[in-house]
Amino acid sequence: MQKNDNNRKALALHKKLGGKIRITPAMPIQSRAELSLVYTPGVAAVSSLVAKNPKLARDYTIKGKMIAVISDGSAVLGLGNIGPYGALPVMEGKAALFKTFANVDAFPIVLDTKSIDEVVETVVRIAPAFGGINLEDFKAPECFEIEERIKAALDIPVMHDDQHGTAIAVLAALLNASKVVKKDVKKLKVVVVGAGAAGTAITKLFIKAGIKDCTVLDSKGIIDSSRKEAHKKELASMTNPRKIAGGLREALMGSDVLIGVSGPGLITAKDIAYMAKGAIVFAMANPVPEILPEEAKAGGAAVVGTGRSDYPNQINNSLVFPGVFKGALQNKVTKITDDMKLKAAKNLAALVKKPTKEKIVPGAFEKGIAEAVAKAIR
Amino acid sequence: MQKNDNNRKALALHKKLGGKIRITPAMPIQSRAELSLVYTPGVAAVSSLVAKNPKLARDYTIKGKMIAVISDGSAVLGLGNIGPYGALPVMEGKAALFKTFANVDAFPIVLDTKSIDEVVETVVRIAPAFGGINLEDFKAPECFEIEERIKAALDIPVMHDDQHGTAIAVLAALLNASKVVKKDVKKLKVVVVGAGAAGTAITKLFIKAGIKDCTVLDSKGIIDSSRKEAHKKELASMTNPRKIAGGLREALMGSDVLIGVSGPGLITAKDIAYMAKGAIVFAMANPVPEILPEEAKAGGAAVVGTGRSDYPNQINNSLVFPGVFKGALQNKVTKITDDMKLKAAKNLAALVKKPTKEKIVPGAFEKGIAEAVAKAIR
Repeated sequence: MQKNDNNRKALALHKKLGGKIRITPAMPIQSRAELSLVYTPGVAAVSSLVAKNPKLARDYTIKGKMIAVISDGSAVLGLGNIGPYGALPVMEGKAALFKTFANVDAFPIVLDTKSIDEVVETVVRIAPAFGGINLEDFKAPECFEIEERIKAALDIPVMHDDQHGTAIAVLAALLNASKVVKKDVKKLKVVVVGAGAAGTAITKLFIKAGIKDCTVLDSKGIIDSSRKEAHKKELASMTNPRKIAGGLREALMGSDVLIGVSGPGLITAKDIAYMAKGAIVFAMANPVPEILPEEAKAGGAAVVGTGRSDYPNQINNSLVFPGVFKGALQNKVTKITDDMKLKAAKNLAALVKKPTKEKIVPGAFEKGIAEAVAKAIR
Repeated sequence: MQKNDNNRKALALHKKLGGKIRITPAMPIQSRAELSLVYTPGVAAVSSLVAKNPKLARDYTIKGKMIAVISDGSAVLGLGNIGPYGALPVMEGKAALFKTFANVDAFPIVLDTKSIDEVVETVVRIAPAFGGINLEDFKAPECFEIEERIKAALDIPVMHDDQHGTAIAVLAALLNASKVVKKDVKKLKVVVVGAGAAGTAITKLFIKAGIKDCTVLDSKGIIDSSRKEAHKKELASMTNPRKIAGGLREALMGSDVLIGVSGPGLITAKDIAYMAKGAIVFAMANPVPEILPEEAKAGGAAVVGTGRSDYPNQINNSLVFPGVFKGALQNKVTKITDDMKLKAAKNLAALVKKPTKEKIVPGAFEKGIAEAVAKAIR
């Protein structure tokens, strides 16, 4: 009932607004003298200068401030492959959050194509106006190749947020949750349910952070070296050190951490009961998590987080992406490295002075989040 | 000296601003409750609805209000083929003018490609977020094919402004200038110097308006049926009814109107002296016109216009494009027709109650211009 009420309100608000962002001129244009500076003839001097020195576009045009939020609509929230029109409300929302949380300008672009080649070439062709590219809601495994190829082609920062924004937020939450349950992060036994964009990036960042025992599952069970897909083969090579065979319950037996990045309602309280004492459960599927916090606690979880704004411990990439691109723009960073991501997670975690079961990450509206994350991106 | 001063000011202003547009959220996002409406989980209801009914994107997303201002930088102002970075300051300026003059949201996209196929496919792929496409500063003859193919592929209005915005503005100016010199518009002998995007569209719109005697020149002289290029062959078939042979002076002999849409300084006072009494001269090249107004008058011109904001009679498409797209969005128009363009020119001309030599078009900052033009686009 509560959910239907929120949906009804969301629909009414969107219809009333007709789009969640607006364009505003950076200065009033009220006289012919002003017009002759921002448009002809004055603008010709700026165009000539920037054409001769394209690097000056960062100083003289929106390129120095503007992020593109780009999706092909192939993996929108928990809704799946719903296409560019379905993706647009989410991308507009992200653009609005960029400004709200980090004073960064961002514009949504949704692509009417699903071909990897076409996505890559389209993003590269429209890149000149932008200072950074936030890829969003591209499905796995295509997302991995798309991100790598666009990064290689451009000299501006490119980040698939479902991978790296989520990974940074989850690592920050885990750093604090492990303090709450008094366990050493590097010694945690971690189970990641879901081997898509988020699951893959989270696992890789955990390993970079020094966590040695990660086990990853997809719909076919624990990922091992028998898998054929490139990114799953790669995951198999760096995970499951105890060579566990089987499915969810085999993986969960005695584990310390469950990261759900798969789909709604896939995990039950009985599953959680297989975990060790002081279990940490992050059920990240959006809008409906793998397990609701009340059920996870009934199963014995000590600390629970979700991606949602209507529960405590919202581990959402909105804590991350505004600051990552704010830092990248401020510091003229061209690639976002693993070291920057680890530092961003640490900076984000450090904002919570005394982590508790109900408070392992800052609230979205606390001050200084984007600034703390931005400091890591240099 | 005045020009250098304006250039210096324009460069300083652009560097200070760092881009001429900003993104703002359409509503404040200040609480978790608001966040849960504009972003997850509430946004999922909107995404689901719009994915199932893409036509609802006009009501629930920015598509109902947002125009893309797109260029490949192949014909920027009078600067030529200077590429996407050089084009960006102009496209940003147009976006700022859209908001200033018509309260229409517009965003600049510059393309890092010159291939017709690539331009067309890129624009089509990024179209879902936009309610209209303003093509800008594409060079001829590629611009004709690019516009036609994008129009055919999309169900939103597409207009190459250098062609049609300019043509509408020039026709409006000519309607009033002909009143000033007391000549019947349809009987005017018109010479168009330049057979690029603007010259071609102006000539075609003049003919639609009932003007029977148009002669068009390019760098090789008067265009006749010996020409090979498709759009010049087409122009030859509808112009030069008196079969004049030769160049500029042969064409100008006894003519009533000279429209310059070519390049800086190509016409002299001596050329103007070949024209009939009460000559109308519009020297539209930007930022440096074909002939300065003082020289045109020295040659005998009765009414002179340019595209610049620092002379009287600024016949600039900034009088036109904001209103065209305002009307198209308001009235959900999918194609901008010739009848709409003719009506837009008449509406624009009618805003000047008593045309004089120094006042044949409204000033850019007069009230009601966009609204008058918008009324024609239905």
